[in-house]
Amino acid sequence: MGIVLYELAGADPSLRFSPHCWKVRMALAHKGLEAESLPWRFMEKQVIAFSGQGSVPVLIDDGETIFDSWRIARHLEARYPNAPELFAGAGAIPHVHFLNAWSDSALLPALARIILLEIHDCLDSSDREYFRASRERRFGQSLEAVVADRPSNVSALRKLLWPLREVLSERNFLSGESPAYADYCVFGMFMWARCCSVVPLLDEDDPVFWWRERLLNAFDGLARSAPRAVAESMQK
Amino acid sequence: MGIVLYELAGADPSLRFSPHCWKVRMALAHKGLEAESLPWRFMEKQVIAFSGQGSVPVLIDDGETIFDSWRIARHLEARYPNAPELFAGAGAIPHVHFLNAWSDSALLPALARIILLEIHDCLDSSDREYFRASRERRFGQSLEAVVADRPSNVSALRKLLWPLREVLSERNFLSGESPAYADYCVFGMFMWARCCSVVPLLDEDDPVFWWRERLLNAFDGLARSAPRAVAESMQK
Repeated sequence: MGIVLYELAGADPSLRFSPHCWKVRMALAHKGLEAESLPWRFMEKQVIAFSGQGSVPVLIDDGETIFDSWRIARHLEARYPNAPELFAGAGAIPHVHFLNAWSDSALLPALARIILLEIHDCLDSSDREYFRASRERRFGQSLEAVVADRPSNVSALRKLLWPLREVLSERNFLSGESPAYADYCVFGMFMWARCCSVVPLLDEDDPVFWWRERLLNAFDGLARSAPRAVAESMQK
Repeated sequence: MGIVLYELAGADPSLRFSPHCWKVRMALAHKGLEAESLPWRFMEKQVIAFSGQGSVPVLIDDGETIFDSWRIARHLEARYPNAPELFAGAGAIPHVHFLNAWSDSALLPALARIILLEIHDCLDSSDREYFRASRERRFGQSLEAVVADRPSNVSALRKLLWPLREVLSERNFLSGESPAYADYCVFGMFMWARCCSVVPLLDEDDPVFWWRERLLNAFDGLARSAPRAVAESMQK
């Protein structure tokens, strides 16, 4: 029956920018698994109602429904043990769980303070009202106010990346000499920014910049070749 | 020749509160190693000048000098491979490096905003002027101003702990079912607070509270029985 992945899509249905869906996309590529990717929008709650969830990613693997990117990664590791490991053994799972939770709780909001308005502008018109209302409630500010002080917000992001920089100044990936889920759960956030935004986030003297480059090139450039909301020529 | 550890000490030389020294203390206990612990104060730069460093921990192991808690942990793992593992294999080292760097760059300053003045008050009078000047420069504020808004600072700390809480809601330790260096590099920060401060940091409904309790009890209560600057009866 194969694998089906529901992914958040923008106004252009080929634009797939959800950080959590990118974690899953990279994990599937790591395992060498093909998936049918279906676009989903915030207003299409009924389309994934079968999963009991109100958001994506939702994965259907041979008839079994799995939701939440962390649960999906754990599922893929258990279900496909002979494909390359996503975790360096069971002992690594708590550590990668921490990295994933840091990515969600610290990196995601720090990036949101830079790209939130651009995300809004990528969305299908049917999704924009919901997105604006829910995110303005979460931040207690208008989207415009959240992103107003870009220099400060970029500076705060770079400061937050210090632990990544420490690890990546000694090795190529957060997982060691080759990438695995510890990398993908953080890289997903950078793909969210790349797909929606033109704001330069990292300098070339930052080891995190080169780590991101390596992951953009992984799996024959899967991430680098993904559609973006803005032309490559606009990028710095 | 045995092992010697230089540790930061307070006005009372038995008061050992450095978070980085606590990481090493727990790592030595994990490996089942005895060490002669020598008190050191900020003003005693000449005492550890042989190490090329201006701060502790400094470890001398069978004549070899090692500095920096992360390097000491790596040294102990390599030097004593038959003692219990500090890292779940070489694959775990990058992940624990991240946790250690997060602890130093995010948890340490968040705790400092709560306990900085109490740390100052624990110090030997000879160290206080140096401590006040260097920390006030770092924070750009007086020590009193750094800790002035305790409710906000405690709230910010608890928010920051979210990734720990995520991991510890599913298992006893950051390393899985038994503690290892991933735990000690974070727990050291809580020992810093415990040794110097009476401010309650965690609620009993927080998995992080119970993780801290388990580590206080580890190694026959090594951490729980450590001297504190204030009477146990003053604690909430």
